[in-house]
Amino acid sequence: MPKVALIMGSKSDWPSVKGCVDVLRKFEIEVEVHVASAHRTPEKVAKFADGARENGFEVIIAAAGKAAHLAGVIAGHTTLPVIGIPIKSSLMDGLDSLLSTVQMPAGIPVATVAVNGSDNAGYLAAQMLSLKYPELAAKLDAHRVSMAEKIEEDDAALNAELA
Amino acid sequence: MPKVALIMGSKSDWPSVKGCVDVLRKFEIEVEVHVASAHRTPEKVAKFADGARENGFEVIIAAAGKAAHLAGVIAGHTTLPVIGIPIKSSLMDGLDSLLSTVQMPAGIPVATVAVNGSDNAGYLAAQMLSLKYPELAAKLDAHRVSMAEKIEEDDAALNAELA
Amino acid sequence: MPKVALIMGSKSDWPSVKGCVDVLRKFEIEVEVHVASAHRTPEKVAKFADGARENGFEVIIAAAGKAAHLAGVIAGHTTLPVIGIPIKSSLMDGLDSLLSTVQMPAGIPVATVAVNGSDNAGYLAAQMLSLKYPELAAKLDAHRVSMAEKIEEDDAALNAELA
Amino acid sequence: MPKVALIMGSKSDWPSVKGCVDVLRKFEIEVEVHVASAHRTPEKVAKFADGARENGFEVIIAAAGKAAHLAGVIAGHTTLPVIGIPIKSSLMDGLDSLLSTVQMPAGIPVATVAVNGSDNAGYLAAQMLSLKYPELAAKLDAHRVSMAEKIEEDDAALNAELA
Amino acid sequence: MPKVALIMGSKSDWPSVKGCVDVLRKFEIEVEVHVASAHRTPEKVAKFADGARENGFEVIIAAAGKAAHLAGVIAGHTTLPVIGIPIKSSLMDGLDSLLSTVQMPAGIPVATVAVNGSDNAGYLAAQMLSLKYPELAAKLDAHRVSMAEKIEEDDAALNAELA
Amino acid sequence: MPKVALIMGSKSDWPSVKGCVDVLRKFEIEVEVHVASAHRTPEKVAKFADGARENGFEVIIAAAGKAAHLAGVIAGHTTLPVIGIPIKSSLMDGLDSLLSTVQMPAGIPVATVAVNGSDNAGYLAAQMLSLKYPELAAKLDAHRVSMAEKIEEDDAALNAELA
Amino acid sequence: MPKVALIMGSKSDWPSVKGCVDVLRKFEIEVEVHVASAHRTPEKVAKFADGARENGFEVIIAAAGKAAHLAGVIAGHTTLPVIGIPIKSSLMDGLDSLLSTVQMPAGIPVATVAVNGSDNAGYLAAQMLSLKYPELAAKLDAHRVSMAEKIEEDDAALNAELA
Amino acid sequence: MPKVALIMGSKSDWPSVKGCVDVLRKFEIEVEVHVASAHRTPEKVAKFADGARENGFEVIIAAAGKAAHLAGVIAGHTTLPVIGIPIKSSLMDGLDSLLSTVQMPAGIPVATVAVNGSDNAGYLAAQMLSLKYPELAAKLDAHRVSMAEKIEEDDAALNAELA
Repeated sequence: MPKVALIMGSKSDWPSVKGCVDVLRKFEIEVEVHVASAHRTPEKVAKFADGARENGFEVIIAAAGKAAHLAGVIAGHTTLPVIGIPIKSSLMDGLDSLLSTVQMPAGIPVATVAVNGSDNAGYLAAQMLSLKYPELAAKLDAHRVSMAEKIEEDDAALNAELA
Repeated sequence: MPKVALIMGSKSDWPSVKGCVDVLRKFEIEVEVHVASAHRTPEKVAKFADGARENGFEVIIAAAGKAAHLAGVIAGHTTLPVIGIPIKSSLMDGLDSLLSTVQMPAGIPVATVAVNGSDNAGYLAAQMLSLKYPELAAKLDAHRVSMAEKIEEDDAALNAELA
Repeated sequence: MPKVALIMGSKSDWPSVKGCVDVLRKFEIEVEVHVASAHRTPEKVAKFADGARENGFEVIIAAAGKAAHLAGVIAGHTTLPVIGIPIKSSLMDGLDSLLSTVQMPAGIPVATVAVNGSDNAGYLAAQMLSLKYPELAAKLDAHRVSMAEKIEEDDAALNAELA
Repeated sequence: MPKVALIMGSKSDWPSVKGCVDVLRKFEIEVEVHVASAHRTPEKVAKFADGARENGFEVIIAAAGKAAHLAGVIAGHTTLPVIGIPIKSSLMDGLDSLLSTVQMPAGIPVATVAVNGSDNAGYLAAQMLSLKYPELAAKLDAHRVSMAEKIEEDDAALNAELA
Repeated sequence: MPKVALIMGSKSDWPSVKGCVDVLRKFEIEVEVHVASAHRTPEKVAKFADGARENGFEVIIAAAGKAAHLAGVIAGHTTLPVIGIPIKSSLMDGLDSLLSTVQMPAGIPVATVAVNGSDNAGYLAAQMLSLKYPELAAKLDAHRVSMAEKIEEDDAALNAELA
Repeated sequence: MPKVALIMGSKSDWPSVKGCVDVLRKFEIEVEVHVASAHRTPEKVAKFADGARENGFEVIIAAAGKAAHLAGVIAGHTTLPVIGIPIKSSLMDGLDSLLSTVQMPAGIPVATVAVNGSDNAGYLAAQMLSLKYPELAAKLDAHRVSMAEKIEEDDAALNAELA
Repeated sequence: MPKVALIMGSKSDWPSVKGCVDVLRKFEIEVEVHVASAHRTPEKVAKFADGARENGFEVIIAAAGKAAHLAGVIAGHTTLPVIGIPIKSSLMDGLDSLLSTVQMPAGIPVATVAVNGSDNAGYLAAQMLSLKYPELAAKLDAHRVSMAEKIEEDDAALNAELA
Repeated sequence: MPKVALIMGSKSDWPSVKGCVDVLRKFEIEVEVHVASAHRTPEKVAKFADGARENGFEVIIAAAGKAAHLAGVIAGHTTLPVIGIPIKSSLMDGLDSLLSTVQMPAGIPVATVAVNGSDNAGYLAAQMLSLKYPELAAKLDAHRVSMAEKIEEDDAALNAELA
């Protein structure tokens, strides 16, 4: 069973990232969740990231707001793929978090998803894992079908309302 | 041998994305390069992405500028991980390309790297592939060591200049 | 009777685009409304756009938020005029939607209206159709007169309040 | 033969808008070009726009930079479709021109194309006119084919270089 | 008695601009208030501005939101000083209104105040008029003293709360 | 003869503001030019502004870049109208200068012109002074005519080139 | 006992800056709080800053919104370190305050913290003072430990909730 | 003699930060310069910052571009004051660097100066150190006088040119 870590910079980010856990569990991907701060607990973050691959993690997802350094700092301590979720705080409408997460220097990428895009962090992790775990590819395909069906239902429902 | 596709929206993007090919080849990852436009050749893009997984591709990298739809359109046609490189055009300083690439709706993620971050698209692809191909993990670790050594040499050189 | 299609990327966009339907109906323009996503139902979108002209549509209006690719993707599948409505989501104050819609590459234009400018998408469609349907020009002129009268009434009402 | 007007706010905009004329002529659309300023020659602009429909114009294209009011002012004087080209000046990287052109109030739309998107203003005009002039639809389709062929040639050329 | 005009693009702007009228009346400056739209009633705006100087107006204040053309259009029809108030709409956080108002071309200035800065439009008009009406200079000086006293009272009150 | 002061924050701003002096001299307005910094010579700035009205100045124009405090600081020391020219530095494309100049608090307005809009600072000063010096109104009207004639000549020249 | 001044541009800023006072008191740093405006009470600000060092202040913290000149103006009147807190007003999402505070010219720095970052202004003052008052270094280290412990508690609590 | 560290994320930042060293040396402050990357050499950065206070450093200055995490990461490893210099890269006009540096979470401040503001990082360090080293206060005062004299000379020179 594949294993993913989800690290958030503050417990207050939990409501914004909960969707990611739901997506991962839907795909039966094990997820370990932690609160850890690149600035307040830097040793904890470094130690976790340094040992992540040998501890069986395959993808690390990091969520942080404002000067969102968490994903980048983790990326500097591992060669596992790191997914960054920029969290919108009450200021700058998420632009600070987005730029702090995505504009990484050469050699240390962060796979950045949309501001508050926690669901997509989960889907992206599943897609990465599908390279190694073929059953995930089938589940992802099935999910695409269900999304398309939902659109068709919405289309029908809207046209029924308008009729 | 792992296989990656690099799709660019216009041949004029080639100088901006060449670094990605260099990185992939350094890691002995096979890369197939194509010019294809989400708007000018939509069927070609759809067909390529629809068949990518069964044609042996494991990661797709897409580079585009301005209203950069290419990565997102490809992501809608495959459950392989898709990496988006926002290309800076002569307008809006890359903000248009970045937002068009990263702000994807739930269910269809694009793993976005920095504006003009073609090298990191290559490194990120290698990191994703390292889940399945353990020899890539070792190569990535070695690259990290060489980057750190380069920093140390630069530090020494600068201090020598200043002494 | 002229016929227009209004496509929205998600049923949740309906409250933001309803005004467009009201405007079109005011001008007795037939409108067909659909939910369809450039990313979740790409074949549906492609098929609709590919056949739109021969199915009697004359203008296509597309509304989407965030990385708003819908209008651009439709524009890549038809030479009918495509009007894009950038929808403001809860993030980035609409800038992401606007840039993703308007910054199209040469050859594939999207006629972009203001963020959340669904009414104007309707008026713009009517203006385009007035080239072929002269009775629309008269209705549009009448609407301009009524808008001006409304301003005059507001001016009088405000001055009455202030007197 | 369909007739379009292209109005620019300053003669210095000519190099930025010349591409629009080339596109229109390629489609054998007659185009009348004028320098006229919403602020320096407001009567000229108002008079031109007021009489445009009865003088046989079918689409008006307006290009202006900075506080780009020209397209909006013209749109207030006609119910013909008005296409706005935001011109990038040396300041604000085109954002001022874009917002001044696109964010029009309800009832008075401007069909806005990309910053410096003069080619697309021409293509969009041709698409609008294709509703009334069916031969234009065929020419537009042919142009789409030629664009796709160009992409294929570029793809082949790039792969030849890389081989 | 000096006379000022305050023109707003929509009656819905009234709550945002009322403060301007209060300031003008505090200085015993006569103010005529009108709703008039650069796009919906262009002739009314042009006629008002063309005749403003000979009708005894000395300053014109214009308030508008989004693609805020009103102040600029008025400025094109008069050589009286025109003050622009960019009104924040629900979109783009006022940046669209600000740039549309302030980025005027050479020869046609608009004296722009802060987004929603209606009070300052009133103070600025009074300052302009103080060049000709010396009693206004004395009133403005007195107002500065009262503002400073208010700050001192606030400082004392805050320190009393904290003691 | 009316008298205006033009203060710039740094001698390096001179090339950007020289146009303002040319405009003022064209209208035979006396202009006194000074380099003075809100941060490096605050007493000089305060003293100048405090005494400006009694020293016969009628308008003060201030030009500064980056955190452009100069106009606002001067405005805090006088009730003369103060015109602010935001100067574009090599960073932030002028947005920092614009926001620092225009977003003034209630009671202390700065009449802000476009980024690098030095010509318009001169025209705006002339318009303010025209309230008191009627001959300036005539000169301003004449200038408007000459601007319109220039547009007509440009229009004719462009059409001659195209014919 | 070290002494710090906290100056805010308006009493309405108090709720946004109160956290700074709490932090300073936690470290037993004396703080004098004042309302003073760079624009409404410029002499008061200049006098306070000119005399601050000889009156025993060691750090000055200044908080202001919109065109936030307060910190910069104070910095021009003292060589004490000045910390600037950009306050978010209801407009421009804090970008105006941030740029007006941080983009200071060479020679006159303002140590800028995050938008609404009043707590950090307190911590930064304590860090500066720790150079001279070694007991503050120990207190700051202890605070870091307590922050890390809080993260660990949050991590444990979240994992307990999820178990 | 006070001692400061200047850390840059890449040797290519040296031309942008050299001015900081010049300022520090002008004030006879010892400065140790290092290239060290938060992402490429995280252990080196952590180790340096952890030991900085006991190794006799009193202020740490950190310069980095794009997703500029360096200053923040250092700040998480020390309670010494950390000054951040956002370096403008070729993209996003410095906004990414600025937001990544300044928007730090509560408890871990970075004293941020202007984009590319390396001189001010030096002056700010000297101001912080002047709390403990009184001779620095005198030198800083003298520097302020020299800056003011330079402005006066510039003013005289400009007026001489204009006369």
